[in-house]
Amino acid sequence: MMSSPQPDHQPTIPLPPAPPLGPSSRSQVPAFQVMTILGRVAELRAAGVDVVSLCAGEPGGGAPAGVSARAAELHASGRALNYTPTLGIEELRTAIAGHYARWYGVDVDPARVAVTTGSSGAFMAGFLAAFNPGDRVAMARPGYAAYRNILAALGCQVVELDAGPAVRFQPTPALLEEAESVHGPLAGLILASPNNPTGTMATRAEMAELAAWCRERGVRLVSDEIYHGITYGSSDGIGAADRADTAETADAFDGIDGIDGADADGAAGAPGDRAGVERGVCAWEYSTEAMVISSFSKYWGMPGWRIGWMLMPEDLAPAIGGLSGSVSLCPPAPAQYAAVEAFSEESYAACDAQVAGFARARALVLENQARLGWTDAAPADGAFYFWAKPGEAMLARYGTSTAYCEALLEQAHVALTPGTDFDTAHGEDYVRLSFAAGYDAVAEAIERIVAFQRG
Amino acid sequence: MMSSPQPDHQPTIPLPPAPPLGPSSRSQVPAFQVMTILGRVAELRAAGVDVVSLCAGEPGGGAPAGVSARAAELHASGRALNYTPTLGIEELRTAIAGHYARWYGVDVDPARVAVTTGSSGAFMAGFLAAFNPGDRVAMARPGYAAYRNILAALGCQVVELDAGPAVRFQPTPALLEEAESVHGPLAGLILASPNNPTGTMATRAEMAELAAWCRERGVRLVSDEIYHGITYGSSDGIGAADRADTAETADAFDGIDGIDGADADGAAGAPGDRAGVERGVCAWEYSTEAMVISSFSKYWGMPGWRIGWMLMPEDLAPAIGGLSGSVSLCPPAPAQYAAVEAFSEESYAACDAQVAGFARARALVLENQARLGWTDAAPADGAFYFWAKPGEAMLARYGTSTAYCEALLEQAHVALTPGTDFDTAHGEDYVRLSFAAGYDAVAEAIERIVAFQRG
Repeated sequence: MMSSPQPDHQPTIPLPPAPPLGPSSRSQVPAFQVMTILGRVAELRAAGVDVVSLCAGEPGGGAPAGVSARAAELHASGRALNYTPTLGIEELRTAIAGHYARWYGVDVDPARVAVTTGSSGAFMAGFLAAFNPGDRVAMARPGYAAYRNILAALGCQVVELDAGPAVRFQPTPALLEEAESVHGPLAGLILASPNNPTGTMATRAEMAELAAWCRERGVRLVSDEIYHGITYGSSDGIGAADRADTAETADAFDGIDGIDGADADGAAGAPGDRAGVERGVCAWEYSTEAMVISSFSKYWGMPGWRIGWMLMPEDLAPAIGGLSGSVSLCPPAPAQYAAVEAFSEESYAACDAQVAGFARARALVLENQARLGWTDAAPADGAFYFWAKPGEAMLARYGTSTAYCEALLEQAHVALTPGTDFDTAHGEDYVRLSFAAGYDAVAEAIERIVAFQRG
Repeated sequence: MMSSPQPDHQPTIPLPPAPPLGPSSRSQVPAFQVMTILGRVAELRAAGVDVVSLCAGEPGGGAPAGVSARAAELHASGRALNYTPTLGIEELRTAIAGHYARWYGVDVDPARVAVTTGSSGAFMAGFLAAFNPGDRVAMARPGYAAYRNILAALGCQVVELDAGPAVRFQPTPALLEEAESVHGPLAGLILASPNNPTGTMATRAEMAELAAWCRERGVRLVSDEIYHGITYGSSDGIGAADRADTAETADAFDGIDGIDGADADGAAGAPGDRAGVERGVCAWEYSTEAMVISSFSKYWGMPGWRIGWMLMPEDLAPAIGGLSGSVSLCPPAPAQYAAVEAFSEESYAACDAQVAGFARARALVLENQARLGWTDAAPADGAFYFWAKPGEAMLARYGTSTAYCEALLEQAHVALTPGTDFDTAHGEDYVRLSFAAGYDAVAEAIERIVAFQRG
């Protein structure tokens, strides 16, 4: 028998205080301002305010009629819309592959096409598949904020290349080598052409050079091509001058990397629609080791549908397929069935007509640049963005582009995006105006801005 | 002048061999078998084979008519479908909040509702917001594979709780404390009730106990409630017996954690539809520090639409909003507008009729269990899954449930899911049959399986 004394009431040992809950440190990425501003636009509109929103990359015209009709028909049938295969329905993967033959003369195996939940879904699955925590991934500054935020949340080290007007806001081997000398070897490079927010495009020669540089160093090239097809064929290095060197450059890269058959310049055999229009240079014309990311959100005018795609490098395809099964299950089914209609002749014609509309809106902005007093504008070769400084008077009055944009939204009911979403160094000097909403919206906005700045 | 000799042809120093490209180590999560099988089902069907697919959690009946009609109308209008606010349109967030008053008597602020791209989108944003790399997150084994895969891809350490029949396949404080003693303190616990693949549910008392345990230890509770509403009120601890202790347990937790007004048992003031049916216990009845994740995929029959939601704990809401702006931009817009119709009286009635259909299919499986020769079945209190061993004869013939399922699919054209998706330890002994496809599909499958096993 135990005889040691037992206290009647042994004091309860209290649990140590619970560690505080709270958000993870990796979740502390800056909010994507444009989404915050869109939220405010929705609030103002709900309160009856007539807001002209030029802040998001949202085409005003909607999807091609055939796409909407297919979706309407599908839903009217009351058919059960179940999960699709993780990487998308075969019919759509095949149609997307066909698009690469049409626009670029590139022969893509449908098995290398992953349909994704917008380009956002492609970036998440692609970055997870390609990069480990700690990997260094380079991108041009200014550049699309979501790249930086997703990479940061996934533990990658974002290496910003200070890509100013001298390099047309695009990465160059010299900038990459400078970055490697400072930070160490890179694991990836994100190239966006046409670029958001500047609109500048890589020429054919520049794409070839960057693809070769990446291949030599074992750096994964991620080519964001979501603005392809929205191009204006006008600026330095793009358009007629660039097309002139197409055949020669393409010849040098012909037949490599499993690109079969067609010439990289696509002149032979492709339907006639590339003859006079440069849609953008596809990274797979030069390296199928690149991840190519695209979307129905821009050229096809379907941002809210959340459907995009990726061309998967062979070595990443199994990982992307496996991860996507868990991360997203599948992209939205109704959007997939409807998007098959995006590749009809009628749909291409409707989209080209929308691009012609963007071109008119773009011309209006360029004509009014002096009235606006905006300076240091980027070329806007493609996409539907005008990136510029709001002028010294406005910066003097408001201090920052964030404050300028806030006042403009609250007082003149015009929504722009401050440059801080795109440029962590010089963003407070710049604004991004999206002319995707079309000529009338842009015309109204310009008058409101001019009046606001006078006031 | 330099006089040192310069060789005419200085040998070019070759670049060191490029490091091999290839997938990231974190992307090497096991493929989610059910998605692979779905891919094979699609292939077989494309080849004209009549496959009975009981592998996915896909309700056969489709969305409520009002939801489909709203979607059809929206697309027929040709309206441009642009980005919505990141966390969803106000109308839907408010409707979802109203659903919590209806079913649980819980007053939810619509600002704490995040609409997401399926529950998958909620898990990705929620896990990123709540957990850092290296954090330990517990889940029951067997359990839903995507939790494990997403957490692993995000660098978290998954701690599997060996939750067998003795604890009705659910976590318990004892299992959690044992896990902490082996692995160290936990950062999170995922609770799924009804559970996939076993169908078991946490009782009201169990949910209360786990919520309190998590709160005391600073462990984030993630409550997966996507099968709520699909319940059969029949098994041990759930149904009449459980409802009897509802009022008492609820009283003990009344008024805490910002749950305003209504009693947690929801008996007073809520519409009459809870009187005879237990929809599942919502974690927010006991702790608003929990992340609650749900979806339109199951009760509402909309898996392919990719739309779900999350109730955000106050401390995580800013991080979830900020991250989601970059990670997903917004959930699919057409699904959001249509889903508002999911909360009409007609839609609830249609969904309850679907659940009655699942109940008939479930009864058929239970009646035929002996003919099938399947053993060790889990209770199937809710959801639409039957988790069992395919019997000694079949395991002897095929060795593993994976081989059994493969033979069954290729020879008898019935798709089941092998247990390996759900149980890393004992999965090769189990299969999961989903009876979501309905009575007729299940009846046909049973006859095929019985014939196949005889053969």
